[in-house]
Amino acid sequence: MSGAHWTAYVVGKLSEWTEEDSKCKARVTNSSRIYFQELAWATHLNIGVVTAKPDLRAYLNFARLMSQGLNSTGALHFWVDIPMVAPKLPTVVANTLSPGEEPWEVWNTIRTMCEGNRRLGVLLRMPDKLPKEDIIQRWKAEPIRGLVVPTTAFTASKDLIPKLSKEYAKAFLGLITADTRIIISGSSIYPNGHEPFLGALRSLWQSLPPPTEDVTVGIPYRDFLQAPLQPLMDNLQSQTYEVFEKDPVKYSQYQKAIYTALTTKYKDEKSVCVVVVGAGRGPLVRCALRASQEAKKDLRLYAVEKNPNAIVTLRNAEKEEWKGRVKVIQSDMRQWEPDEKADILVSELLGSFGDNELSPECLDGAQHSIKTSGISIPKDSTSYLQPVAAPKVWGDLQSQHTIKAFETPYVVLLHRFCPLAQSEACFKFVHPNHEKPLDNTREKLIRFQPAKIDSILHGFAGYFESTLYEEVNISIRPKTFSKGMFSWFPIFFPLCIPLKINKGQTVEMKIWRRNDESKVWYEWCVIKPSLTPIHNSNGRSYHIGLR
Amino acid sequence: MSGAHWTAYVVGKLSEWTEEDSKCKARVTNSSRIYFQELAWATHLNIGVVTAKPDLRAYLNFARLMSQGLNSTGALHFWVDIPMVAPKLPTVVANTLSPGEEPWEVWNTIRTMCEGNRRLGVLLRMPDKLPKEDIIQRWKAEPIRGLVVPTTAFTASKDLIPKLSKEYAKAFLGLITADTRIIISGSSIYPNGHEPFLGALRSLWQSLPPPTEDVTVGIPYRDFLQAPLQPLMDNLQSQTYEVFEKDPVKYSQYQKAIYTALTTKYKDEKSVCVVVVGAGRGPLVRCALRASQEAKKDLRLYAVEKNPNAIVTLRNAEKEEWKGRVKVIQSDMRQWEPDEKADILVSELLGSFGDNELSPECLDGAQHSIKTSGISIPKDSTSYLQPVAAPKVWGDLQSQHTIKAFETPYVVLLHRFCPLAQSEACFKFVHPNHEKPLDNTREKLIRFQPAKIDSILHGFAGYFESTLYEEVNISIRPKTFSKGMFSWFPIFFPLCIPLKINKGQTVEMKIWRRNDESKVWYEWCVIKPSLTPIHNSNGRSYHIGLR
Repeated sequence: MSGAHWTAYVVGKLSEWTEEDSKCKARVTNSSRIYFQELAWATHLNIGVVTAKPDLRAYLNFARLMSQGLNSTGALHFWVDIPMVAPKLPTVVANTLSPGEEPWEVWNTIRTMCEGNRRLGVLLRMPDKLPKEDIIQRWKAEPIRGLVVPTTAFTASKDLIPKLSKEYAKAFLGLITADTRIIISGSSIYPNGHEPFLGALRSLWQSLPPPTEDVTVGIPYRDFLQAPLQPLMDNLQSQTYEVFEKDPVKYSQYQKAIYTALTTKYKDEKSVCVVVVGAGRGPLVRCALRASQEAKKDLRLYAVEKNPNAIVTLRNAEKEEWKGRVKVIQSDMRQWEPDEKADILVSELLGSFGDNELSPECLDGAQHSIKTSGISIPKDSTSYLQPVAAPKVWGDLQSQHTIKAFETPYVVLLHRFCPLAQSEACFKFVHPNHEKPLDNTREKLIRFQPAKIDSILHGFAGYFESTLYEEVNISIRPKTFSKGMFSWFPIFFPLCIPLKINKGQTVEMKIWRRNDESKVWYEWCVIKPSLTPIHNSNGRSYHIGLR
Repeated sequence: MSGAHWTAYVVGKLSEWTEEDSKCKARVTNSSRIYFQELAWATHLNIGVVTAKPDLRAYLNFARLMSQGLNSTGALHFWVDIPMVAPKLPTVVANTLSPGEEPWEVWNTIRTMCEGNRRLGVLLRMPDKLPKEDIIQRWKAEPIRGLVVPTTAFTASKDLIPKLSKEYAKAFLGLITADTRIIISGSSIYPNGHEPFLGALRSLWQSLPPPTEDVTVGIPYRDFLQAPLQPLMDNLQSQTYEVFEKDPVKYSQYQKAIYTALTTKYKDEKSVCVVVVGAGRGPLVRCALRASQEAKKDLRLYAVEKNPNAIVTLRNAEKEEWKGRVKVIQSDMRQWEPDEKADILVSELLGSFGDNELSPECLDGAQHSIKTSGISIPKDSTSYLQPVAAPKVWGDLQSQHTIKAFETPYVVLLHRFCPLAQSEACFKFVHPNHEKPLDNTREKLIRFQPAKIDSILHGFAGYFESTLYEEVNISIRPKTFSKGMFSWFPIFFPLCIPLKINKGQTVEMKIWRRNDESKVWYEWCVIKPSLTPIHNSNGRSYHIGLR
């Protein structure tokens, strides 16, 4: 085997008989000596990974050795070999176990003691029978590098082919990703050993329906942190427009919203004035045109766009495609002085957190173009927050070694994560906004549902829901998600310190939306069950520019 | 008044009528506007400090404003105006108070939300009647910049001079330092207003006995972080020796220990061989000579020292002062091959944490010079740890913006701090060490007494106790402190995250003493009530060199 193969394929197994946490000092010393000898050997062989098995009843020295191993090697990965469900121990031994000590707690202790090092993973051993859904769910957030399935989890079907139950198969598929190593453990009754079990898992994987487009679009972005767009400060690139225009759900919802408005509120008008602000390369203009055709209603249609590059495409479409049915205007929507005010002002300015790309400020600035009786599509937007365990994403932030990383809300398709409670409403904005004076600062104290299980809080996933018009909505909030829509990934508000949350505890957080003449920013902190500092105080790490 | 006077003497008072945490948005917005107007005015006047008063029932927006103020000004200090005891509110209002909400909790929340910023202090208002000692004690750890004493706390004595009760006076003196501003509040019956009250406090201060030498030595070092000595890697400076030699207690204890050994264990010997290792400039040699005179026992006395600079002083004393009664040898005690082995090996190698200046390694290396029946003075040393709240010292570490600061045990005379439980024994070393093989690694899981009050844990104060010989001890552990001894300040093992500890909770921590061929180091972490990462894993931030 070549050196590269040793690194890529071989998993080293550290001795299991060592007793790092024995009460006998000589055994502890000896175990530590063996550990470093084996690490030196693994390094010599250029192995990429070693597995190590803690004693679930005493593991503090074990954790220290992992930490020292991580700190004294540069590239070696460590997988902690741990069962999903604690093995039943004889009563005498069981007395030494802390009551209710879950293997996940053992893992969480080791991980925390090792500072959430990204080279520390889990080799998770599945049980014969699945535990409660909560427990499986909590493991989904963890860095499961290897998954061990026991042969006893399978039943033999009539043709003697081993099979997993539907629930077991679902749990299995939920816990693995494309690069998880799968291991079969236990005895086999088959002449060809464990091959039939692996075959069963392989066909389970192959039997999955091909991913839909929205899933395919997302795969490369899973747990990948992106800084939020700055649409007012930067001009969007053509490719960015292109990705967004492909969304199969968003524009059909917009079309439906415009159609509904034309056929209800404006059913008696002969012709309706529709203004698209932030028209980009024209997708909402096309929505309006399709809705007009469907509703058999004439439009006086305007497309306003500030990006001088997108205007080129719009002017081209005006000539070649729309042939005079649309007036294209190059202007910032906030400065534009229209000849005619709009019945319907259409825009798509929402960010992952609703208002985080400054839709309230832009629409406030544009609403002088709406008639007194006119409407805005969207009519409103509401942001939502949800406490989550997201060790993968948090570890990536920590590896940046700067407070700025923890004070920036990132756009990220959370994949390895676990929600600790359902999402709760945060800020709401309504358009047009008739308040006086206009004030887009907000503050909210959010109290989440009590945690159902002991877990760890790394931050808050943010979503939005928006009423486009009457019953026509778009949403990226899990409970009301617009199926198939892929234009928005969630946003993630990190915490600089992960907080342990115990079963029954209520997470309480406070978030502010602040502004000054030149920028808008968020600040947030956790109040209960423990306190954190205010993140992004005075917008010091992150803001959205108004200019 | 000159600009410098404005900065040094004037304390600005931010408006108290503002309602940052009102449920009415307009009031919140207005309060915020006023706040920034007043800050701008304070900055214009070059004032050094402003005070601000939170509503004890709702203060999250208040805390955010403090945080924004701290982050948007460079030098302005903020004092939070807060009572030591919550005022009794009318029943109707009291319903809105969280049960048991202590003003300290309010302060702790504000401080935590503001990241423990060092420009945030307390203007503490004392009550008419003192609360429980625990509550006063907890405030002692806090940055009390101003202390307000109400006139109602005084009683008028016969000659109509106002006076504080003994307990009140004690609490008052415990809460102030030399730079605390004192304010009298409330009405006065005296024709010359508040002057008699200030006079009473002034004479209270003046009536204090002059500080003893050990206190005087310590004053400039209060809460000042020092990296521990590295006696094996560096040669001590003459001044360092000089400070240590002044200790009035340590050397009299050493003399007593040698005297006791000479008059009990060696009472029948005509002459005793005494070897002083690490003799420095000779203080222990003088102890031995005094003990010999007192016990009327002849000595064969050797002084071993590796520092080539200290040897100059020793050789000089050998000639001029000791006139042949002492043999001076320049050598590392670990390499020295004596002509004659010692009955008594005397050394002073202990650090603040006992073994932290490598006394076990040095004495193991020197014990070949002891007769089989011989003894070591000191006979043993035990380290102690105590959980403490120490926001001042922790803030200084945080301002270094590096993980290294939190992973180094510092020598520091803790002054603004509050112990959360009594100290518990940690590591013990006995000399000479007859174990085989010699092993100076240690590990200890320490469970402290439950906390008596809600508080915050910033780290662990470390002390030592040592038996010199039989009943003769030295100790810097608070409970058994050798009164008047000033050679050692405590050591402080910090935590990278302050942990909230609630009343009744038990702090559990684990500490390791590790070594390899070239160095010794500690690693530590908290296990309960919450977890921290392992500090100083693999000695990455701090170690004591063996060479």
